[in-house]
Parts: sequence; structure tokens; C-alpha cells
Amino acid sequence: MAHSALGPGREFDLIRAFTAQDERLRSAAPSRAVVVGGGDDACVVAGSGIALSTDISVEDVHFRRTWISARDIGWRATAASLSDLAAVAARPIGILVSIAASSEDMESFVIEVMAGVSEAAAAFDAAVLGGDVSRSPGPLVLDVVVAGGVEQPVLRSGARLGDGLWVTGSLGAAAAAVLDWNAGRPPQPDAIAAFARPRPRIAEARWLAEHAPLHALIDLSDGLAGDAAHIAAASDVRIILDLDRIPIHSAAVAAAPGTQPAANTQPADARITHALRLALAGGEDYELCFAAPAGAIEIVADAFVQRFGLRLTRVGTIDAGSGVVTADALGELHPLAIAGYTHL
Amino acid sequence: MAHSALGPGREFDLIRAFTAQDERLRSAAPSRAVVVGGGDDACVVAGSGIALSTDISVEDVHFRRTWISARDIGWRATAASLSDLAAVAARPIGILVSIAASSEDMESFVIEVMAGVSEAAAAFDAAVLGGDVSRSPGPLVLDVVVAGGVEQPVLRSGARLGDGLWVTGSLGAAAAAVLDWNAGRPPQPDAIAAFARPRPRIAEARWLAEHAPLHALIDLSDGLAGDAAHIAAASDVRIILDLDRIPIHSAAVAAAPGTQPAANTQPADARITHALRLALAGGEDYELCFAAPAGAIEIVADAFVQRFGLRLTRVGTIDAGSGVVTADALGELHPLAIAGYTHL
Repeated sequence: MAHSALGPGREFDLIRAFTAQDERLRSAAPSRAVVVGGGDDACVVAGSGIALSTDISVEDVHFRRTWISARDIGWRATAASLSDLAAVAARPIGILVSIAASSEDMESFVIEVMAGVSEAAAAFDAAVLGGDVSRSPGPLVLDVVVAGGVEQPVLRSGARLGDGLWVTGSLGAAAAAVLDWNAGRPPQPDAIAAFARPRPRIAEARWLAEHAPLHALIDLSDGLAGDAAHIAAASDVRIILDLDRIPIHSAAVAAAPGTQPAANTQPADARITHALRLALAGGEDYELCFAAPAGAIEIVADAFVQRFGLRLTRVGTIDAGSGVVTADALGELHPLAIAGYTHL
Repeated sequence: MAHSALGPGREFDLIRAFTAQDERLRSAAPSRAVVVGGGDDACVVAGSGIALSTDISVEDVHFRRTWISARDIGWRATAASLSDLAAVAARPIGILVSIAASSEDMESFVIEVMAGVSEAAAAFDAAVLGGDVSRSPGPLVLDVVVAGGVEQPVLRSGARLGDGLWVTGSLGAAAAAVLDWNAGRPPQPDAIAAFARPRPRIAEARWLAEHAPLHALIDLSDGLAGDAAHIAAASDVRIILDLDRIPIHSAAVAAAPGTQPAANTQPADARITHALRLALAGGEDYELCFAAPAGAIEIVADAFVQRFGLRLTRVGTIDAGSGVVTADALGELHPLAIAGYTHL
């Protein structure tokens, strides 16, 4: 049973505290072992080829109902959870949905949320297997559990020296929408779409895993800066990010500047423009980030782009050491002075 | 793929609405079929022998922190979810835990809740596989997902004419605790224990499934009246409950009378005493209720009681028709005028 190390952050401290106290259980129950435990994007139950992951969405933390529709809320929560299957190159089997909602929301609003859940599940070949519903005096809470099938999960922990670090798509659009909403401005339509209707890169991850020797894989839920740090921590390597190559979404460039995308981001060097900060620190792009041997992706990149109509960009290199760094104009390496976006 | 019909109730209406709209998905994806779908206690993923279920607990709906400790909250939520594995005679493999909590609770309170989660998982041989944590402006919400292994799940839907209906243990203690707490009286210690530290009947269910031909099985989470109605609906049969044989917990007898255990219970006939009402309508006993051919349980009952130190009581008979009925003093059958306890 392998456990991935986690990157920095308060949420991860809690998960660490949680799993640490459970170490006894794990070593006491080898026959019930999991291939991948808590800390990676999904766990894989040994002997079954079943990957499981859970993702909780809380109103006014992960979304506001003034921003997106009930149906979008359901889609988004489900897509976010399915993205954890993409992150280990698993194929969806089904989902379970738990909802806590106020008595007023319990009828039509929750039914609409569930319609969005079903729509997202159908779009990515997952059946709705079950769920639970409870009244709550608090905000709408959705917990979506995904079950997937996976023969050979790709973990966060396998990045090796000399590997290239790649991302799919372009980054920062969902964060741009949040930025504009928070500033009281209407976001760009494609920024809204990126936030409300993210598309987990399920087929893309499976295609890449079939066509190239992926060493490490993660989905960009915490932002590239944060998720690269997770790969670095889990793989015990240092990642050199090439800031000039980050594929910034046009909606991030268009988003009105002047506000920080998240409370815990800090100004970095001068090259970290406003749009680049959204691309690096903005969460919930749900694109893929992966490490593969030098040259391995270049030869399949055209086929990937043709098949999926999605960019594929090399954004960094795996190096010895720890953490995430960038090179300055003189070629000197400095820690990336920007944190991943987190809800906590 | 078999889907169980659900008994009456508002929560079940929502689940029905949810799964109905998903019928298209199910028929569209036969290769990803599940053996048991939403509506039974757990779903079983076809070909994998993996049973999954989810159970959400909301502060001030399912528990109050003035009643039980943070550790008990974690134990209780986990035990409730594991009980869904007992309900299909599955063995636990692992759990995933999602928690939404206030910023103030995020440190020590949540860690204590998680300690209770781990304790319950360890007690029933489940590993903690993963989870998710989010800040929330609302009440503490825990969603515990359980994964189990099962070769031959026992469903709600197999009860046959002439079967006896049985329950393990004695009923009404958890409801007695809630009744006393709500009335401002300290509950009996064993009522508190029944509410705070329920023990899912995992080993008991597997033993029974191995030693007797169980036709239908459910765990008593909604109260015997409600859960018997679920078996009746799923199996398309009528259940005749023998009110004189219901094993009432001594704590239910001792609980102070005068208050309804739940808003949606109604007075039934005169034989439904206050204590009997707690046993019939009180939720969350997490005992087992099952149907088996006449004579099949009697011959293994002594061995069961010796092994588990737990009562085993025949409480009714499976008949043709629908719903749950009781016989009056003249032998006439009447619908049981008491609803199962529900949080909604």
C-alpha cells in the first residue's frame, strides 16, 4: 500500500492528521489493503480494480446560487468529483450523491440540482448508484462519491528526474469568473462556462495513459501552483515551472484586475501578471497536469490535439530537490511565491 | 440489474424522483451495470463484488453536540453508514469521510470527530481510504461512504409468502434517549450508549446469511414500522406484525412518556403503548430485520444468541398483499397506524 505525501496547506494538514492516526488500522488490516490510500486523488481498492473518491461542495464556499443555476451546481459538484477519476486515469462506473438542504430547497431546488448531477453523470458514462438526502438548517451541501474502474492507476508520486511537466487546456478561466463575481462585474461567458460546467478530462487521461508512459498525474483542482507542489511532495522531486509557457485562458486575461483571486495568494515576482496569477493560483480548472519522460509527449501531442481539440503544453521540468521553483531572468531559481487556491 | 421499490415517505419520494430521471442512464449503460441499484441499502458494482453506500449526518438534525461528544459524533455517523453494509450482508473494506465544518470547529473539534470515525472503522475492520474537508458557514455535516465486499448480497426484495420476519436485539433505546433529551431530562445510560455508540450488526448479518436461507434483509435505521414497510414494498408482499412480540428495550420502557418521538407519528390502537411506539417508530436502532422461511431461523437461534449475546425475535409473518398490518383482538387485520421515524 502506497501513500502519497501531500503538498502544503491547511486542508492537507487536517487530512494528514486524520490519516496519521489511522496508520495503525492500515498496518493492522493488510488483507483489506488499498493500492493507493488517502492523499492521492482517488483510492483504489486492492484486488477489485475499483477507484473511489469523494468531493464535498458547500454553498457560499464552493459556489453561490446567485452565480449559477441549481442545475449547474449539480453538474459542477459531479464534474469535480469525476475529475478525481481522471486524475488516476480511471474510467467512471457510477456515483453516489449525498445532499443536505433546507426544507425550502428540498423540493424543486434539490430536484434541479439532482438533474444537473444526473446530466454530468450521463455525460461521462457514470450511473447514479445511490445517495442520501437530509434536511439541514445550513447551506446546501453536496457530497459526490465516484467509483471508477482502473487497471493501472497513474499516481502523483511517480515523477522522475528529467521528466517534462505538462498541462492540458488553458488555465485561469474559472478563477476569472469568481474574481469578477466577487467584484460585482459580470464575468465573460466562457469564464462562467468554465466555472459552471467544467469537463473532467476522463477520456483525455485514459488516452494519454495508453499512448505515453505517464509517470505522474493529477487534476488541477487546487491551481497549478498547488497541484504541482502536490506532485513534487508525493514524488520527492523539485519542479521547475517555466512561467513563460503557462497556457493562460483568454478569459483570465480579460478578467478585470485589481483584486486578489484568493486571500492566501501573495505577490510574486514582476513577471507574475494578474492573468498569470489566475492561471497559477486559481483553482478548479479541472485540467490535467502530468509528468512524462522527455520526448514522450511531443510525439503524441499532435494526435492528442486533433482528437480532443485541447491544448497540450509543456510547462516545466522535474528536477532533484523539493518544492516548486521558477527561474529568474538570470537563470537563478527561486521558490514560486504564490500559493495554490484553497477554500479553507 | 434489480431495483428495489421504496416504502412511503418524503425522503424516499426524493430518491424516487432522482433515480427515475436516471432510468435512461441505467438502460444506456448495461456494461457498467450494478447488481443492486439505488433504493436498496447499498449498491453492488457488477463484476467487482464491491458494495457501496453513503450516509449523511447533519448537526441539529441527526445529533446535537450538547448531547454527545465529538468522538461519539464521528463513531455514530460511521456506524450508521457501516450498518448499510450489514443490511446487505457485506463485509467492510473501507470508508471515505467528507466533513463540512465551521472555521472554529476545523481544528480540535473536527480532529476529535475524525478520531471517532477512525475508532468505529477500526472496530469493524474498515480502513479509512480517503475523504474531503471543507469549511462551511453552517452546521457540522459528515458524509460517510462505505465500501464492502459481498459475494451474494441479501436484498430487501426477496421476502416470500409464509416467511417469518425477525429482528435482532431490542428496539427503541436510541429513540428513548432523543425523547428524554428533547424533554430536558437526562436519558438512561444505556439509551445514551445506544444513540452515541450504535454497533452495526456486520458479523451478525454475515453469520445469519451463512447459516440460514435469508430471503430479505434490512437494517433498522428508520424504525421497524418504516423498515418493514420498505421490505413489504420491495418484495411486493404484506407484512403482518405481531405487536405482542416486539422486543422493546428496557430504556424505552423507562423513558419518560408524554411526548411524541417524532412529528410524523400518529396514535395507533390502544395496544401501541408509549414504549412500543418508541420501538416501532424510533429510528436508528441499527439492528437487523430479515425474512426467512418458517422454521429456518428457529434451528439456529440458540447458536446465534450464544455467539453474539443478542436477542433474536420473530415479530411477524410475510403475507400476500401490500403494506404493514397488525391483527386486533378479534384477529382482524388493520394497517399499522404509525409511521417510521424520518429526519425530513
